Amino acid sequence: MRSKLAFIGLGVMGSPMAINLLQSSYTVVGWNRTPNRPLVEKAAQAGVQIFPTIADAVKDADFIFICVSDVEDVKAVIFGEGGIADNAKSNALIVDFSTIGTTAARDISAQLQPRNLRFMDAPVSGGDIGAQKGTLTIMVGGDKADFDQCLPLLQTMGKKIVYCGTVGNGQAVKLCNQVLCAVHMVALCEAMQVAEQLDLDPNLMIEVCSSGAAGSWALSNLGAKIAESDFAPGFMIKHILKDLRLVQESLADTDINLPGVKLSDRLFKIVQDMGGSEQGTQAMIRAYKESSM
Amino acid sequence: MRSKLAFIGLGVMGSPMAINLLQSSYTVVGWNRTPNRPLVEKAAQAGVQIFPTIADAVKDADFIFICVSDVEDVKAVIFGEGGIADNAKSNALIVDFSTIGTTAARDISAQLQPRNLRFMDAPVSGGDIGAQKGTLTIMVGGDKADFDQCLPLLQTMGKKIVYCGTVGNGQAVKLCNQVLCAVHMVALCEAMQVAEQLDLDPNLMIEVCSSGAAGSWALSNLGAKIAESDFAPGFMIKHILKDLRLVQESLADTDINLPGVKLSDRLFKIVQDMGGSEQGTQAMIRAYKESSM
Repeated sequence: MRSKLAFIGLGVMGSPMAINLLQSSYTVVGWNRTPNRPLVEKAAQAGVQIFPTIADAVKDADFIFICVSDVEDVKAVIFGEGGIADNAKSNALIVDFSTIGTTAARDISAQLQPRNLRFMDAPVSGGDIGAQKGTLTIMVGGDKADFDQCLPLLQTMGKKIVYCGTVGNGQAVKLCNQVLCAVHMVALCEAMQVAEQLDLDPNLMIEVCSSGAAGSWALSNLGAKIAESDFAPGFMIKHILKDLRLVQESLADTDINLPGVKLSDRLFKIVQDMGGSEQGTQAMIRAYKESSM
Repeated sequence: MRSKLAFIGLGVMGSPMAINLLQSSYTVVGWNRTPNRPLVEKAAQAGVQIFPTIADAVKDADFIFICVSDVEDVKAVIFGEGGIADNAKSNALIVDFSTIGTTAARDISAQLQPRNLRFMDAPVSGGDIGAQKGTLTIMVGGDKADFDQCLPLLQTMGKKIVYCGTVGNGQAVKLCNQVLCAVHMVALCEAMQVAEQLDLDPNLMIEVCSSGAAGSWALSNLGAKIAESDFAPGFMIKHILKDLRLVQESLADTDINLPGVKLSDRLFKIVQDMGGSEQGTQAMIRAYKESSM
């Protein structure tokens, strides 16, 4: 029987990633918790065979990719009844693209080892656009030999595929990435507030500051959105809040102090409480403008 | 008599700027509070005629450039005894490169107007390297006709010369720039702390995060210095603290809340209290590592 790849979770990220995976020479099959979704149908039309159960999807798979929302979802598809752990064939390589923090990734790996299942954490950045274009950054933690074996498959989905070391290290790099994104948003919102108070054209400020030592991706890409009160996501506030929670959980055993992360967390939560949880992270400006903070 | 340019303040920024100004077709003369400094002698050797008093330096000048440290220094060279205001010829254009905040710039301009002296604020970014290479960004506030007249001279000193609107607006853009730099440093320090706690290679984290939505000039240029505990300036902590003070002064009449600025100010002050005031801004990491904050 021909080898196959299974993709668990065909949502806004997983569906286009599974479609890009069809570029490999393998068969790609998939499963989604809610099967009747346009993104699942899109994957099916592209050639991903959709199965009604995880067990059917993974039973012949050499590689099993997971792309779901949060820690509990990942644990459910792996360890839940009828899940991957009970149905995957021996020595299958499970690659989890979800952002779940270092602790969960290492726990899952440790639990899979005695069952002869291999695990790599491989969180991504680049958003739905990156998933569609196959230009994601993929941060991989796990065994180097497993990484090398999987690399050609990852290259169908991402442009920058980085081996970060032992299992959990992909998560660790992703958490650093999210710390930077969250606190850069504080910087951007405050610069926008100063510009407004001093009667500056915000786009002039953005253009000038982008070119030098004050430059950031956030300034160049999200500053103009703030100026226009365009809060469409991009990356949703509920997702950055999840990631900041994972930062705090992953560092729970340490006495590290992260006041910038705490501040950004507080500001995002203010916007969440205003009903902005599905707005883009740039909606942090609402905490400055619509609350007394 | 041939027109000339006067340059007041031949320090680490002013000396190379005055030297670059020699590329214009004008005579350049200069004055420095402390004349016997290597940088002043360097300017003299390049062709800047050094005068012992401000009065002598500015009396025939069509354009008078100022590059000193802080608000009080600018006011002293303009309004002090034997200063520019009493000695410049009528209709001379005074261009101040110092970062002094919006309020001081507008006050100075208003006081010079009845004396028939024109004023533009033109704070710069790009550091001593940018001053030497003539690649500074210069943010100019003032009358548009004055800006146009001065532009060819500014172009000998900077690569990106931006007209920001009415007097004080150059300062306003510069303050936004410094807000971004200060809070980006918080983001960078916390990402570095997370990387360390999670046993990541900091340079791997920097390289991966630089390429995407977490990217910033600070991450790309100062992250590696933090990893090596290289705190040589760059831009000194005492100067960013001055600029953050100016942000707060410029917004004193408003009820704007800038918790990220306040946090960065607090962290830089901790390092200042450790004796780090002349270290680069990346020494903020010392607040995280060497204090209980």
